Amino acid sequence: MDTQRLLAVARGDQPADLVLRNLRLVDVFSGTSRPGEIAVCGTRIAGIGPDYKGKEEVDLQGRWVCPGLIDAHVHIESSLVRPREYGRAAALRGVTTVIANPHEIANVFGVEGVRYMARDGKRGPCHILLTVPSSVPATPLATSGAALGLDDLARLREDPAVVGLGEVMDYSGVIAGKEQLFREIGLFRDRVVDGHCPGLTGRGLAAYIAAGISSDHECTTAQEARSKLQCGMRLFLREGSAARNLRDLLPVLTPAVERRLSFCTDDLSPGDLLHIGSIDHMVRLAVKAGVPPMLAIRMATLNPAEHFRLEDRGRIAPGCRCDLVVVDNPLDFRPFQVYQAGRLVAQGGELTEKQDDTREVEEPERLRRSVAVDWRQVDLTVPAKGERIRVIGLVPDQLVTRHLILPVSIENGRAVADPQRDLLKLAVVERHRASGRVGLGFVKGFGLRQGALAGTVAHDHHNLVAVGADDRSMLTAARAVAEANGGLAVAVGEQVLCLLPLPIAGLMSDLGIEEVARRAAELDAAAGNLGTPLRDPFMTLSFLALEVIPDLKLTDRGLVDVQRMQLVPLFPAD
Amino acid sequence: MDTQRLLAVARGDQPADLVLRNLRLVDVFSGTSRPGEIAVCGTRIAGIGPDYKGKEEVDLQGRWVCPGLIDAHVHIESSLVRPREYGRAAALRGVTTVIANPHEIANVFGVEGVRYMARDGKRGPCHILLTVPSSVPATPLATSGAALGLDDLARLREDPAVVGLGEVMDYSGVIAGKEQLFREIGLFRDRVVDGHCPGLTGRGLAAYIAAGISSDHECTTAQEARSKLQCGMRLFLREGSAARNLRDLLPVLTPAVERRLSFCTDDLSPGDLLHIGSIDHMVRLAVKAGVPPMLAIRMATLNPAEHFRLEDRGRIAPGCRCDLVVVDNPLDFRPFQVYQAGRLVAQGGELTEKQDDTREVEEPERLRRSVAVDWRQVDLTVPAKGERIRVIGLVPDQLVTRHLILPVSIENGRAVADPQRDLLKLAVVERHRASGRVGLGFVKGFGLRQGALAGTVAHDHHNLVAVGADDRSMLTAARAVAEANGGLAVAVGEQVLCLLPLPIAGLMSDLGIEEVARRAAELDAAAGNLGTPLRDPFMTLSFLALEVIPDLKLTDRGLVDVQRMQLVPLFPAD
Repeated sequence: MDTQRLLAVARGDQPADLVLRNLRLVDVFSGTSRPGEIAVCGTRIAGIGPDYKGKEEVDLQGRWVCPGLIDAHVHIESSLVRPREYGRAAALRGVTTVIANPHEIANVFGVEGVRYMARDGKRGPCHILLTVPSSVPATPLATSGAALGLDDLARLREDPAVVGLGEVMDYSGVIAGKEQLFREIGLFRDRVVDGHCPGLTGRGLAAYIAAGISSDHECTTAQEARSKLQCGMRLFLREGSAARNLRDLLPVLTPAVERRLSFCTDDLSPGDLLHIGSIDHMVRLAVKAGVPPMLAIRMATLNPAEHFRLEDRGRIAPGCRCDLVVVDNPLDFRPFQVYQAGRLVAQGGELTEKQDDTREVEEPERLRRSVAVDWRQVDLTVPAKGERIRVIGLVPDQLVTRHLILPVSIENGRAVADPQRDLLKLAVVERHRASGRVGLGFVKGFGLRQGALAGTVAHDHHNLVAVGADDRSMLTAARAVAEANGGLAVAVGEQVLCLLPLPIAGLMSDLGIEEVARRAAELDAAAGNLGTPLRDPFMTLSFLALEVIPDLKLTDRGLVDVQRMQLVPLFPAD
Repeated sequence: MDTQRLLAVARGDQPADLVLRNLRLVDVFSGTSRPGEIAVCGTRIAGIGPDYKGKEEVDLQGRWVCPGLIDAHVHIESSLVRPREYGRAAALRGVTTVIANPHEIANVFGVEGVRYMARDGKRGPCHILLTVPSSVPATPLATSGAALGLDDLARLREDPAVVGLGEVMDYSGVIAGKEQLFREIGLFRDRVVDGHCPGLTGRGLAAYIAAGISSDHECTTAQEARSKLQCGMRLFLREGSAARNLRDLLPVLTPAVERRLSFCTDDLSPGDLLHIGSIDHMVRLAVKAGVPPMLAIRMATLNPAEHFRLEDRGRIAPGCRCDLVVVDNPLDFRPFQVYQAGRLVAQGGELTEKQDDTREVEEPERLRRSVAVDWRQVDLTVPAKGERIRVIGLVPDQLVTRHLILPVSIENGRAVADPQRDLLKLAVVERHRASGRVGLGFVKGFGLRQGALAGTVAHDHHNLVAVGADDRSMLTAARAVAEANGGLAVAVGEQVLCLLPLPIAGLMSDLGIEEVARRAAELDAAAGNLGTPLRDPFMTLSFLALEVIPDLKLTDRGLVDVQRMQLVPLFPAD
């Protein structure tokens, strides 16, 4: 950036590269709007009108101009596409910066995976910044493909795309005073340290915050959110494909507390990102729920920028990046144009630049060989050892589950799925080291009447997870995704009904997001045909293995009681 | 800080060192208050009640507990005492952190002076943090005792007490693109860069901000403040002894913009600090003017903490410093108790700890020899070269002056002071290098009917400044302060009526603040007896030499037209 030229344009001594005219400027500082003009020099805003001259001038015909939206926390891998593809879809939505935590690929490929995400993220029309994944692996209660040690964190910290330490998920470890975690946090003491502590309140919360954690995005109730706000946490209100918390959390919003709140999506399915939206969708939802548009926009711009100390964005001001969203009106907030770093990247719902395949970053070949399962050792049968069994109870639209204890269905001395009772079998097959280890359990609320689903996306360890009405279907689906070097599949009996290969780390497709969304929809339809009422059954499936979100989860090592952070037997002692 | 012990206390596994009970906690996050308890471990807050056990427990009988106040910008030297003494007086007022810009001593002794302030500041019950003085010297239009080069700034940047770059005063230089200033700002790009741009608006303001300046504390009108807020500046509303801007600026306050506003005092006389107050006074003023107490307190706590990225203070939360002010009620905001880093430092208007002379930091001997004037070369006479003359017009309670052109009073071919017309002579005598250089001018609004005032405090270069009704009185006062190695004096004819020595850099006394305030009051009374109606004539005098605040000022090099940033002759061309 040539500061001399920027200032010459600001002073009016040189013409701007671009002047946006006849617009209504959203002033996030005062939460008001006013007519204005914006003079752009290269990637930056040089001044705010009137009367700047530009080499190019655009008449916005009275439209509203907001700062580009910021997603405070997202796992790009959840959208099943590479960062460049994620960025294309996000930019269409007016999201010009995302703070991505490449936690999923880190659990498969460690530093190499994180570096890949940073490199590939530079290719798209959305600025992808990273937090360094903490807690990789999340806990010792599952088998990951890789670990990030302190040295790895220290090296990644120096990457220019890195803004802080990502959600410190092992909150029990932090509270208990695990020195390793203190050292991780200490490395990022002068940056930002994000948190993750679903349901945590009281003294545990005090200890977690006292350790140096500054944010949380896992609140599900207004009461929980208030407790965390009172203790000084900044909150990211989340509206993702698997966790829709915005409506429940909006009651905490007051003019005084608003600055402590940002928006995030956390995990978005490719279809939701393309067809429903991202942070733009949250702005619309908030406004629809009665939030004044100026406050909704601040939660999507200035607030996350302040949290991450990004003084160069989330606002329209001299010297800042020219990241802008132009909308017809702020009530329905449909992006008419999107500018990123001074370039018009989207207009009328279309990207202005073709995907530039000449700039293709090919992922290292190793990233395409991430699935190793020794099928000879894999056995899904569950000998019946009692009359009652632990069951993971789904909670609609939440990542948290219930820890149920239900009567077991037995056939030939084995505990089996019983679709009529909506009791399905769940298996997590270790897929990084061909250990043959399988965790087995049961789940209620998934609703399959027959067949099975399987996938290599299974937070956070990303083993191979399968759910089904019978073992044969489960094995068919599981083998299909393994043979594709990762993916998602639906099967009945010996037949694979539908398969989406995810060859990059078993997490991401190498196709465009539109194609991935189409095929993901086919998968969902196939799963729906088998009876599941879930909106996004594969995302739900992928979170059933996440042993840091209460109450009961399954890993390759077995059932985890998350509240107590320990493995528990499938058949409870009476 | 032992994090393990902090967390053990937070969890309730170990007793707190101190528990404050039966209090009303001011929650700056939500701008509300609620009953609570505060558990303290060492210097930090471990948790917020209920039911923590403490080795010591204090019943606050329902009083309100706020975060310790933060002064966003202050020049300690203006209070004429050493940092430790300033800290004692500030702590009595509930101010537990000040962001001090040691700009005055830097202009006299450079790095050595700044280091002294940091060292001495550690001794008192208020946490003194520093911004590194920028623009030393402020401009080439005055002679300073020292300069701070880029290397000096880079070294000072690493001092743990340093939070950023202090007010970049040479705003014309920034706007014009002076590379030296870009480099200064660039050194602090990932910290905070404070600004100083009185009256600046429009394109100049855009250029100044685009260069990377984030704050301003020089606004005098609501309109100016709004312009700066709209361009993304954070503002420090100022209420100091020589510039009382709070009332004029409060109209900009809205719930939405409040987060961008902090309080600062900039310059306080020792008497004002002791008897009227500091940021506590601003809270009272704001509340009296109708600002909700919770918002006033935020502007004095959370907002400056956020600006300076001090995540460990300005709030009451686990892990934060235990910096607290206890008040009977937030409407009159009189500190009942003050805690700093977990220690009770003040109660009922008295410090709890005696000044600990065993920890005395003696200033380097060189700092006590700062005045060098060759009196043989000093001549205060002004040959009359025209009928009209430029006159500095005082504006009550403001640092800005008017640039007046008035008829001259002539005696024996010389332009002279004419007390009957309230036209006094002003002299700035270079005092760092015994050059004999003297700048001469006239001032209206000072009101002396006879005699003279002189002082070695003269922002920012701190030459020897004198104002008087006749040359003889001016020379008497000026010689008296020079012989004392710095100070302030009032004289009539050959007689020194009153003298306050300021032996440390010619700026600060080595006495306690109470004694300094008493003697400063005597000086003011002596000056008042000579006819001046000014509330704080020596502080007013000291700013008449500050060539970066419009419109007309006087340095040892002559009259400065600040708008044009150039020397202008005393007698304007017709």
